[in-house]
Amino acid sequence: MYRNDNIDELLNRFFNKDRMALARVITYLESYPDKAHEILKRIFPKSGNTYVIGLTGVPGAGKSTLISRLAQEVRKRGKSVGVVCVDPSSPFSGGAFLGDRCRMNAQELVSDDGIFIRSLASRGQLGGLSRATDDVVTAFDAFGMDYVIVETVGAGQSEVSIKDLAYTTIVVFVPNLGDSIQAQKAGIVEIGDILVINKSDLGGDHLKVQLEQMLDTYTRQTGWRPPIVRTIAVENKGINELFDEIERHKRHIELSGILEKKWKERFKNRFYNALEYKILKAFYDKYSQIDEINGEINKVLDKKEDLYSSVDIVFNKIITKIKEES
Amino acid sequence: MYRNDNIDELLNRFFNKDRMALARVITYLESYPDKAHEILKRIFPKSGNTYVIGLTGVPGAGKSTLISRLAQEVRKRGKSVGVVCVDPSSPFSGGAFLGDRCRMNAQELVSDDGIFIRSLASRGQLGGLSRATDDVVTAFDAFGMDYVIVETVGAGQSEVSIKDLAYTTIVVFVPNLGDSIQAQKAGIVEIGDILVINKSDLGGDHLKVQLEQMLDTYTRQTGWRPPIVRTIAVENKGINELFDEIERHKRHIELSGILEKKWKERFKNRFYNALEYKILKAFYDKYSQIDEINGEINKVLDKKEDLYSSVDIVFNKIITKIKEES
Repeated sequence: MYRNDNIDELLNRFFNKDRMALARVITYLESYPDKAHEILKRIFPKSGNTYVIGLTGVPGAGKSTLISRLAQEVRKRGKSVGVVCVDPSSPFSGGAFLGDRCRMNAQELVSDDGIFIRSLASRGQLGGLSRATDDVVTAFDAFGMDYVIVETVGAGQSEVSIKDLAYTTIVVFVPNLGDSIQAQKAGIVEIGDILVINKSDLGGDHLKVQLEQMLDTYTRQTGWRPPIVRTIAVENKGINELFDEIERHKRHIELSGILEKKWKERFKNRFYNALEYKILKAFYDKYSQIDEINGEINKVLDKKEDLYSSVDIVFNKIITKIKEES
Repeated sequence: MYRNDNIDELLNRFFNKDRMALARVITYLESYPDKAHEILKRIFPKSGNTYVIGLTGVPGAGKSTLISRLAQEVRKRGKSVGVVCVDPSSPFSGGAFLGDRCRMNAQELVSDDGIFIRSLASRGQLGGLSRATDDVVTAFDAFGMDYVIVETVGAGQSEVSIKDLAYTTIVVFVPNLGDSIQAQKAGIVEIGDILVINKSDLGGDHLKVQLEQMLDTYTRQTGWRPPIVRTIAVENKGINELFDEIERHKRHIELSGILEKKWKERFKNRFYNALEYKILKAFYDKYSQIDEINGEINKVLDKKEDLYSSVDIVFNKIITKIKEES
């Protein structure tokens, strides 16, 4: 049914700050990549003003609560915020166990017009989750959100490299994790511009020392030493300080030219993502027009032909088809 | 220098079971994708006999030791084994902290001709780590390895879906993980054909009950209930039982037709991976022939043109170039 929307009318509503239109635009970007290109072309010129904050950390660190509180802090300061939660591991789950790992306190937040929350978990489409996340950030941006917070579940091992997308990356730790989790720390300390020890009421002095030691041995080139902020998100403690640190990091990368460099990197990534999507789509459109191609694959499955020769045959058929067109 | 190898000569040595040739073939597959297609075409017909075992689990679970022991068990039974360790998170690490997370007890194993170990961590190439892993498995397969063990670091959240590649997937747990890690369990219980509680000397009774409960509520359609095997890898305890369970699962999926289905799925994935690589490469080859394309990207970076219109322009230039060729 979505496919019958009138895009002009939808985007009119979108630019008039209609939240329903924003929701629908995001659905297009996530699930209908062939419409996405057209929509992105139209909304892109309005984008470029949002500040993207990434947040990641170990499971159970209280990331969702922290983001709820951060979002409320943004609102207190008179700014608007979009939240994207990316869960690349969902395809493994039938849903029975895992439930929605992107669980904001939606009831607290949803009545506020300046906050919009969206989960992303779909995969397997051309371009994948990484492209979809960037597209949703662009939608929030063009919609006029001052900040976008991107949460990824699973630190450092995610398909979506939060570092490529976010201007400030927050890594959340929690006291008293088993030793087995220690090994993970080093990797994620490196991606954090700000380190958070959440659930600080449970301890964290020892963890803070460990993290400081890691920061001592790891010299960044930018002249920014990641601060360690202690929070108790459920009690709203430390959130104000955390947001101050975000603002401080924002100023740091603006003044040092790092933000502009990140911008350009992100642009390049998006350019190549969009180009590769377009290229593959063009090929697959031709592919579907050539009846005998599935026969080729079946020959491989029946071991009558080797897979890589078969790829060559299919590739050449598609190229021929493209060349034949006027 | 690798590029000057004579492929015929290299593959001759490869088919004569020369381990140096195997190492070099893998390097090609990993790092020189344009040579990879040619090599795969040649070795593919010799593949199709290896049994692929996937192994994943939380950090600190002792996966590397477990794999060392498993590999030795395979050898005891007179079979050969290749090991691929995939670490998708490496790009985050400058190497200072993380070290090599794929750390087999290489000194124990390397002198044995029937064992070959390889780490994969590179990323950012066309097709990514997932394709490279599958290619390395194919190399081991064509080389004549009876078993291949694929280890991924980071359970369920990896770019590489071990489930797509492996016929039997082992998920490794460890007693006394913090509660914060519990949330992860559900997702990875679902992907495991065999669950292992390693470091069982540290406990694990409670964990076993928890895992059994999860298995109770999660009904698989295949009629296979994942066994829970307790091991102490450093003392070589439980390894024999674990390998027996692998063999039992192997027979189960052979008899039930699941193995053939998995085979065909893997073939299809490989077909599309190879096709998409070839398509994108063809485009990028043309791309590099068109001087003004980088100018288009710069226009976007300077905000003189919108990104998605620029993608259209570049795409059309490349298509025109392809059509112009005879």
